[in-house]
Amino acid sequence: MKELKIALLGLGTVGSGVYTSIMDRKGALEELLGHRLKLSSILIKDSSKARPFVKGVPLTSEFEKAIGEEVPDVVIEAIGGIEPARSYIIQSLEAGCHVISANKDLIARHGEELTERAAAKGVRFVYEASVGGGIPILRTLRELLRINRIQHVEAILNGTSNFILSYMRTTGSSFEKALELAQKKGYAEPDPTNDIEGLDAFYKAMVLSKWIYGVQPSWEEVQVEGIGNVLLEEIQLAEQMGLRLKHLVLLNDRLDLQVQPVFVDSDHPLYGVEGVDNAIRIQTDLLGCLTLQGPGAGAEATASAIVEDLLSIYETREIYRNKPAVSELCPKKQEQEVNTYLLVGEKINFTKERISAIEKHGIIIDRTSLRFQPISLAALLYEGPLPLEQEDEFISVISIYPVRLSKSGKGIEKEKVPVAE
Amino acid sequence: MKELKIALLGLGTVGSGVYTSIMDRKGALEELLGHRLKLSSILIKDSSKARPFVKGVPLTSEFEKAIGEEVPDVVIEAIGGIEPARSYIIQSLEAGCHVISANKDLIARHGEELTERAAAKGVRFVYEASVGGGIPILRTLRELLRINRIQHVEAILNGTSNFILSYMRTTGSSFEKALELAQKKGYAEPDPTNDIEGLDAFYKAMVLSKWIYGVQPSWEEVQVEGIGNVLLEEIQLAEQMGLRLKHLVLLNDRLDLQVQPVFVDSDHPLYGVEGVDNAIRIQTDLLGCLTLQGPGAGAEATASAIVEDLLSIYETREIYRNKPAVSELCPKKQEQEVNTYLLVGEKINFTKERISAIEKHGIIIDRTSLRFQPISLAALLYEGPLPLEQEDEFISVISIYPVRLSKSGKGIEKEKVPVAE
Repeated sequence: MKELKIALLGLGTVGSGVYTSIMDRKGALEELLGHRLKLSSILIKDSSKARPFVKGVPLTSEFEKAIGEEVPDVVIEAIGGIEPARSYIIQSLEAGCHVISANKDLIARHGEELTERAAAKGVRFVYEASVGGGIPILRTLRELLRINRIQHVEAILNGTSNFILSYMRTTGSSFEKALELAQKKGYAEPDPTNDIEGLDAFYKAMVLSKWIYGVQPSWEEVQVEGIGNVLLEEIQLAEQMGLRLKHLVLLNDRLDLQVQPVFVDSDHPLYGVEGVDNAIRIQTDLLGCLTLQGPGAGAEATASAIVEDLLSIYETREIYRNKPAVSELCPKKQEQEVNTYLLVGEKINFTKERISAIEKHGIIIDRTSLRFQPISLAALLYEGPLPLEQEDEFISVISIYPVRLSKSGKGIEKEKVPVAE
Repeated sequence: MKELKIALLGLGTVGSGVYTSIMDRKGALEELLGHRLKLSSILIKDSSKARPFVKGVPLTSEFEKAIGEEVPDVVIEAIGGIEPARSYIIQSLEAGCHVISANKDLIARHGEELTERAAAKGVRFVYEASVGGGIPILRTLRELLRINRIQHVEAILNGTSNFILSYMRTTGSSFEKALELAQKKGYAEPDPTNDIEGLDAFYKAMVLSKWIYGVQPSWEEVQVEGIGNVLLEEIQLAEQMGLRLKHLVLLNDRLDLQVQPVFVDSDHPLYGVEGVDNAIRIQTDLLGCLTLQGPGAGAEATASAIVEDLLSIYETREIYRNKPAVSELCPKKQEQEVNTYLLVGEKINFTKERISAIEKHGIIIDRTSLRFQPISLAALLYEGPLPLEQEDEFISVISIYPVRLSKSGKGIEKEKVPVAE
């Protein structure tokens, strides 16, 4: 029985999860792989730190020793960030190792180069854990939906943002309080910029775009908006209208990509995705709409994706072509699609005349938003392109979010406001 | 370039969907397979019926001609039912053809035999479309979750039942009205027994059990309950408590299987699955909880599963072992797990004394159920084994359904009833 040697780079949250998962399942992995398995070395940053849970695996703080002394068959990169992760991966590939990574920043930026280097050396570079944590999004898209053309995806890919929005809605907490708790629970980093500003979701969206369509939109042109400006009042008003605010990635086969907070109605498959869960709704031409939901982060979920990737390297090698199946790009539409917006503004005096004037411009005032007294904000549901010139006349716009309605659109009552003059 | 010959058995809803899907995607399929593709024959029942949409493929009403004149590489069985489907599949396998089937009754009963016959001839017998329509449930379980042990699954596998329950809840219709509409829309058969009585979901559960654990529970011992006795009032009362009634398959690694209506709370991943959608929540030891949702029936969704199966025969042949990965059975627990029930009974006079007496037995009266006046029924949330001897004293039990709470259990307010004497 051949022996497979694995080097693990990094022993933080993800690295430790991978270590434990492999050690706990060594027998089952060996049976599935048909090979003996050996963790040949673990690269650590600080060699003075005690790691009593690691048994019988050499620890080193020098990368050259990790892959040099005994060249591994597979290198698992669990360091994160661009450098030195990128250099280590390149050196590993050049040495003929398969590489598994969970590093979305790096793969968003350098995935193409790394994949090409892997192909040139006849090895695999796989990274299921980089998008959607434990959810097998990438492999579902490439292995299980080969003849299905992916028309568009809507996804919750940042668990921290989803946790914060869920927590604000269910507890009435402010953004700051929710962020503080997310940090305390370890969901958000001490510097939460990447999560809060939407960059983490953007990197994952770029990985997805390349994976599905073989190309990425221009990095400069993508509209990326995080949840940093979301007000509790907006979330609460939306809830009264049967809507929930979700931080979504929206990508379609014309390579339109948006990363932003979006209101979804109660029939939308992402409406019920709460806490740190991630989810993706995949619209295809044949199957229809498939939704996957699961843990978007966490040591065990990420380890699951990495260890399943390890198996896939040896099990799907021949069929895996590192290119999309049949999801080709469609030509860009010239005209802008008509959007539906939710405007949240200061409440003004809704006289009959004002409502008629607003309605002439296609705005529908949701009556549920007027039920709750006293209110200082009102939610206005608006269909069609936004008439910016009308803003100041009727409402002081605080924020504008798009609304994604399920096909039925049943989640929103579109009845007129009963006018009290 | 080698030519792959495909024979299609049956040209009803599923068969026609498969025909169209293959014809429309011939070029892409050929590119993915690396072979030319030819539909060599289609078996039909009534050869006098005109089928103008079939072009250039010989139609025959004799099975021997369909696979005899030009032995196909792959046979797609889209007839349904036990016979003659079983005989045709056996003859196809014996002739050295791979077989794809969507036939859950047949696979639940004879899947093991057919799989063994296929293995003996070195061909594949695959049936993704038999469970969950277009959702790639079986392949996700076997190909993407190989090292994850499947601890339990909760699934909505009968789209007709789900449609009826959704429709009753959202429109206030009776069961009979909802069933009538389901038949009109083609979701339910003219004889809806299999759907309504839970047998369709039971067959799919049996396919799942064999697929995940390699064995099935005893057919006689499984508790199967359909939605035929569900009252609109129960659904409406549950809604007031934040619960929805779903027809679920519950299967775990101790081979406990239940097929029955269950109340789920709003944090449960199956709560938002509406209409004819199917969904499965898979709990594993490493990843955690993964949920897949999508169309459970329909010509295109079923065709998607069948055509993806066609690709998988040639792409995953070597790694596919037709046996579970690592999901072994756990020993049966001796003691019964404590369940949570929702009792729906006639409302009685809730005096302080009566409530105290009820509460001594662990019953918690949900205060939301008392808000709505007038009511003739009351919903009682009860934790622990049901004290049947207490029934008559306090409530007239109309029906008892188990409740599946999400971990947080936030969906139900457990506060005491404010007593008005």
